[in-house]
Amino acid sequence: MKLVSYRARGKERYGLLSPDGVGIIDATARINGAETLRDVLAQDRLKEVLGATSGAAPDDALDDVVLALPITEPEKILCAGRNYRAYHEVVEQQRAPDYPSIFGRFASSFSAHRQPILKPKAGDQLDYEGELVVVIGKAGRHISEERAFDHVAGYTCMNEGTVRDWMSKGTQNLPAKNFDRSGGLGPFIVTADEVPDPARLRIITRRNGRVVQDGSTEQMIFDIPFLISHISKFTRLEPGDLIATGSPGGSAVESSSPEWLRDGEVIEVEISGIGRLENPIVSE
Amino acid sequence: MKLVSYRARGKERYGLLSPDGVGIIDATARINGAETLRDVLAQDRLKEVLGATSGAAPDDALDDVVLALPITEPEKILCAGRNYRAYHEVVEQQRAPDYPSIFGRFASSFSAHRQPILKPKAGDQLDYEGELVVVIGKAGRHISEERAFDHVAGYTCMNEGTVRDWMSKGTQNLPAKNFDRSGGLGPFIVTADEVPDPARLRIITRRNGRVVQDGSTEQMIFDIPFLISHISKFTRLEPGDLIATGSPGGSAVESSSPEWLRDGEVIEVEISGIGRLENPIVSE
Repeated sequence: MKLVSYRARGKERYGLLSPDGVGIIDATARINGAETLRDVLAQDRLKEVLGATSGAAPDDALDDVVLALPITEPEKILCAGRNYRAYHEVVEQQRAPDYPSIFGRFASSFSAHRQPILKPKAGDQLDYEGELVVVIGKAGRHISEERAFDHVAGYTCMNEGTVRDWMSKGTQNLPAKNFDRSGGLGPFIVTADEVPDPARLRIITRRNGRVVQDGSTEQMIFDIPFLISHISKFTRLEPGDLIATGSPGGSAVESSSPEWLRDGEVIEVEISGIGRLENPIVSE
Repeated sequence: MKLVSYRARGKERYGLLSPDGVGIIDATARINGAETLRDVLAQDRLKEVLGATSGAAPDDALDDVVLALPITEPEKILCAGRNYRAYHEVVEQQRAPDYPSIFGRFASSFSAHRQPILKPKAGDQLDYEGELVVVIGKAGRHISEERAFDHVAGYTCMNEGTVRDWMSKGTQNLPAKNFDRSGGLGPFIVTADEVPDPARLRIITRRNGRVVQDGSTEQMIFDIPFLISHISKFTRLEPGDLIATGSPGGSAVESSSPEWLRDGEVIEVEISGIGRLENPIVSE
């Protein structure tokens, strides 16, 4: 299933992408008591969504609706920083770390598919980072690596936009990572049953059509089971929580003369089998 | 006004502390369309809450109810790290920084007044930090320091509990600061009109009755207007958002032989005119 959150006919909705990929079957109208995809996950009703929409004709054309963030109000968005070997080789020039760097982003720091990413007033160095995102389906604390995938509902794409000139303002990266609508998230959630091996996905970022990042999720230093287990040592993962797994090499910051994102550019993050997230850059 | 979120008679409620401080006047039952204090702030209805409860007899005795976090579901909890001179003098042995270190906490990392703070399984070095918290009342982005207090609804207390042995796991402090129920928050929100000068409040932390932190909010390196203005440069502040303003010296980490918090201890954070937040320590 490809699950999508969107706005159509005056209301926030969620549904399934039709098999031809151009229509949406509205699930909101067919499922009582679950207003959002987060509710569906929390109530363990994905199968019911599939059953209720099976064989139905699309209610909306994908091109006619405004997509929302795939989970519209996640309780937590956790990101693993510096999780690809390339970054350490190029930027840090040091060996891989003993632990991932886990930081947080607010939902307000993201735009949905095709919505503008804002180049902020208060920062000049907006950069892109294409990432695979894990969507948590089942709550858990102290999850073992062996059971980690039991807690995964699916996957989506992120452009983990970062305002680099704010990385040195204070010791923590929260401000640099949380400018309003400085990143992208979406377009769909692809359910885990359609992703046989999330450690073998090609991840490509294009800037105005030109490939600037081209990696594979097999280059992660800390894999998805490790990240889920590690994070659940300190916090309870909840349905709809998102875990971004880090970005391969190729961000602007890695250049000796970085070209930061500018108004009018277009950034795409494409992950094989997961989707293609596209956002224009617009000045705040 | 002293505003409180609580559970009584089978329902989540909010209300006003009665003038004698031992009763709660239930506002939930008197205000339509605002389920939480965050709703009240977002709808700018504090005056209506005051009017609707004025002169009413208490509906509940404070000792009979279970207090909730003062804002039960804040969109954002932002904390300023290293914001008191003592910390820099004692721990960092360096001059004050150019910017505050802003990091985030999830609501799940806090317990309400009198609820247990959990000494985690996965960490040994649980530490306390008493802090004044600003409660945002009015949304805003790019707020000037001059207009900052226009956006403040009130104040509460925080024990910004930190698991020190996780501070070195990765480059970011999110895990160390976000163990489930590792901090305390509350007990009440004191509205801004009752706090003539938040920069002149005494802040005391007691450990089993013994004073371990004793400072004044005038020791902040970055004051409340600066913090509000700085944070609003990157993210829109929303009603119910919380900003913790840092902790004066005296945390366990500052000792040459730190005594971390243990099961059975009691931690209190008391701020003059704001309240006294008390939590027992219990092993997870």
